[in-house]
Amino acid sequence: MLLSYSLSREAGTPLYEQLYSAIKADILCGRLAGGERLPSKRALSGHLNISKITVETAYNQLLAEGYISSRERSGYYVASIQLAQPPASGAPQARAAEPPEPQAAPGAAASLFPFSVWARLMRSVILDTQQNLLQRVPSAGLFALRKAIADEFMRQRGVFVSPEQILIGAGTEYFYSLLIQFLGHGRRYALEALGHRKIAHVYQANAAELVPIGMDDDGIMVESLEASGASVVHISPSHHFPTGVVMPISRRQALMAWMAEKPDRYIIEDDYDSEYRFSGRIIPTMQSMDYLGRVIYMNTFSQTITPALRISYMILSKELLPLWQQKMGFYSCCVPSFEQLTLTRFLDEGYFDKHLSRMKKHYRAQRDKLLALVAQPEFARHFTALRADAGLHFVLRIRTALSDSQLAPLLRSAGLQAPFLSSYYVGPPAPEAHGCVVVNYAELDADSFGAALQKLADML
Amino acid sequence: MLLSYSLSREAGTPLYEQLYSAIKADILCGRLAGGERLPSKRALSGHLNISKITVETAYNQLLAEGYISSRERSGYYVASIQLAQPPASGAPQARAAEPPEPQAAPGAAASLFPFSVWARLMRSVILDTQQNLLQRVPSAGLFALRKAIADEFMRQRGVFVSPEQILIGAGTEYFYSLLIQFLGHGRRYALEALGHRKIAHVYQANAAELVPIGMDDDGIMVESLEASGASVVHISPSHHFPTGVVMPISRRQALMAWMAEKPDRYIIEDDYDSEYRFSGRIIPTMQSMDYLGRVIYMNTFSQTITPALRISYMILSKELLPLWQQKMGFYSCCVPSFEQLTLTRFLDEGYFDKHLSRMKKHYRAQRDKLLALVAQPEFARHFTALRADAGLHFVLRIRTALSDSQLAPLLRSAGLQAPFLSSYYVGPPAPEAHGCVVVNYAELDADSFGAALQKLADML
Repeated sequence: MLLSYSLSREAGTPLYEQLYSAIKADILCGRLAGGERLPSKRALSGHLNISKITVETAYNQLLAEGYISSRERSGYYVASIQLAQPPASGAPQARAAEPPEPQAAPGAAASLFPFSVWARLMRSVILDTQQNLLQRVPSAGLFALRKAIADEFMRQRGVFVSPEQILIGAGTEYFYSLLIQFLGHGRRYALEALGHRKIAHVYQANAAELVPIGMDDDGIMVESLEASGASVVHISPSHHFPTGVVMPISRRQALMAWMAEKPDRYIIEDDYDSEYRFSGRIIPTMQSMDYLGRVIYMNTFSQTITPALRISYMILSKELLPLWQQKMGFYSCCVPSFEQLTLTRFLDEGYFDKHLSRMKKHYRAQRDKLLALVAQPEFARHFTALRADAGLHFVLRIRTALSDSQLAPLLRSAGLQAPFLSSYYVGPPAPEAHGCVVVNYAELDADSFGAALQKLADML
Repeated sequence: MLLSYSLSREAGTPLYEQLYSAIKADILCGRLAGGERLPSKRALSGHLNISKITVETAYNQLLAEGYISSRERSGYYVASIQLAQPPASGAPQARAAEPPEPQAAPGAAASLFPFSVWARLMRSVILDTQQNLLQRVPSAGLFALRKAIADEFMRQRGVFVSPEQILIGAGTEYFYSLLIQFLGHGRRYALEALGHRKIAHVYQANAAELVPIGMDDDGIMVESLEASGASVVHISPSHHFPTGVVMPISRRQALMAWMAEKPDRYIIEDDYDSEYRFSGRIIPTMQSMDYLGRVIYMNTFSQTITPALRISYMILSKELLPLWQQKMGFYSCCVPSFEQLTLTRFLDEGYFDKHLSRMKKHYRAQRDKLLALVAQPEFARHFTALRADAGLHFVLRIRTALSDSQLAPLLRSAGLQAPFLSSYYVGPPAPEAHGCVVVNYAELDADSFGAALQKLADML
């Protein structure tokens, strides 16, 4: 089928951009269904009377963002992604394009958050700080919070970092952009071939060259990384989303060796979600193994407290600090002093650790219930749960000959709210991703999950 | 004199970067004094045994950031900038490089801020919102705040904007980066030849091509802008820092005409500081004149409330909104719901307007005292105050044959804390900037200012 769009050479945006947006919009609103074949570049360029390059550029952007996929000698196909919900008041449409990503709070888990404590701390901060709440916050964040995080890091992982090495920022996305500015736009950045869409979005928005690197059961493949010519690799070794892979020490050492080969190589260790680990011994962070001072560690409190609290932190090596301060120190800290002071007390007074263990207990129980369900004989024939050792989600493999796009309507009618693993690929999905969905159990009710599995099993 | 630095080819950073940092550090710590001549590129490249290109790249970066200036057929000279203060705990050194920029609060003015009201609103927000404070904030910000800002905009300027057009962000710097991502890194961005250092820093950090455009008494010169080949111009027409120029309607129309010439041209109207205007009728914003939908307006509450409250807003035209949501909507809002809700009440309940008029009254009185001082016969021979109609600062021209770098020690010993106008240039300063200093009267005590003028006058 041929797509008809009216593109304007007069418009403020380039033609490929207009075409990209138009097709993306059609995918999001469902006018172009998952699995549907797109017209060939030649056909579309002829039809719309624009250059083949223009179509190619638009297609490539859609490919990169995972809206379409390409198949050998067969053409381009619409990826099966979640359809757009009607946007909430003020919420931009584009966010609906994101497959939902596991969130600790708000929702069921939010009820576990000791809000009364948090509110009390907020009030005490107002009382104790008064006018000083109006003081400008240093670029790196309030020292008290950086100290509290250093202490927490020692408590949780037994690793010493000096408060000076810790920088406070408004969410990890914010740090991604800063890191591209810090390390340079000219570089090639390597990403895990699948993961949080947002990570790729930020690199693309910053016009940084991006190369997705394939993963095996141990995580990102170092040979492919070596071959990619990238000088920075962005990984989440302690618990990869959405595959759940926990990178073994051997692979971490291989990555350190890769970094050691050249003086200009860096590793961004995105430790998002690492707090929720239910089995297997804790593996030291890359940051703690880093003898070269070129691992940049980051983590966030959105998962452990609430996404509404935009506070993340980054750990820079002592070697990198001076350069950071010189290049990036002019930026103001984006996090208000009030939230920083409240979080400082929440950490220092032990509430964070308490909250964390309560959450872990809750999520483990939740997970075990769901895994038990999946393991039931009537389901075991159809479903396997993969890598459920950590995080707030696991991968459910559905034994079926159906393609993901054939499977999609079945999932919907079964009421199984779980995006396809394939929808998390930066580039074209790997064949083994077929039939796999990502189950976020943070918000899931066991009974309705069981009912959904039953319905689905009956349809398979 | 020749500079000796040990640069390492092994280090993680390129040689020019190392050289740039080394020289910059020497300037900041005062080892290289203002006005001092730097070695020629050839001499230094020979001395350090590195390529001439490397030296040139380092010098150009220092030039671009205003640390050094170049003179026709004479070479490179260290710019006279404020020397570094010992950094506050946790505050990165680099910030010391910034000439101080006028701040409404904290300090003397902070005492004018009705903190008790603010604290009461904070407490009421906690009480009324409870758990909902944990809710994720939509990418564009809370609708309530966007509505409150739209209303405020109507009250203050009689201009209607729909709340949907308003986006909430964590400070204007944050918006600068987002705008570069939105409009594209490939473009050439035009800036006023002098202004807040930070603006240039952000563009440079984002690897955007930057062209400083000369200014006359009406502001940025449209012919030079036309000639520059830039497609985006970033200006502050309602009150330029630090010159104090208020762009007349004629020049604004000329800029609109420039934008109208090509469909891909944009104007970023940075309205920072516009609230403090003491004389002259209010001139409509470019945004309100914009019939093309390509003026992007931004303003901040750091000047009017406190820099600790990182809340800015941007007004996008209805034409640009959909594209913004598609390209940038995936970003989370960096401002916590708590601050957004508190500010909403502060605006809706009229406290902001009250505070603003109190501040204006205070600053006008403060300004008039200082201007009266400068106008005294014994001073009038030496000093003239320029463009003091708006903002929290004015330019003081010192009648002298001394160069700025000869003047610097006199200012210091007179105890006049006022950076040279020349230190605010993105590129080499214009000759007429000579002998001009920028007086920030937000924090200034009239008596000590008078005493400083007296001391200085005696030395001239």
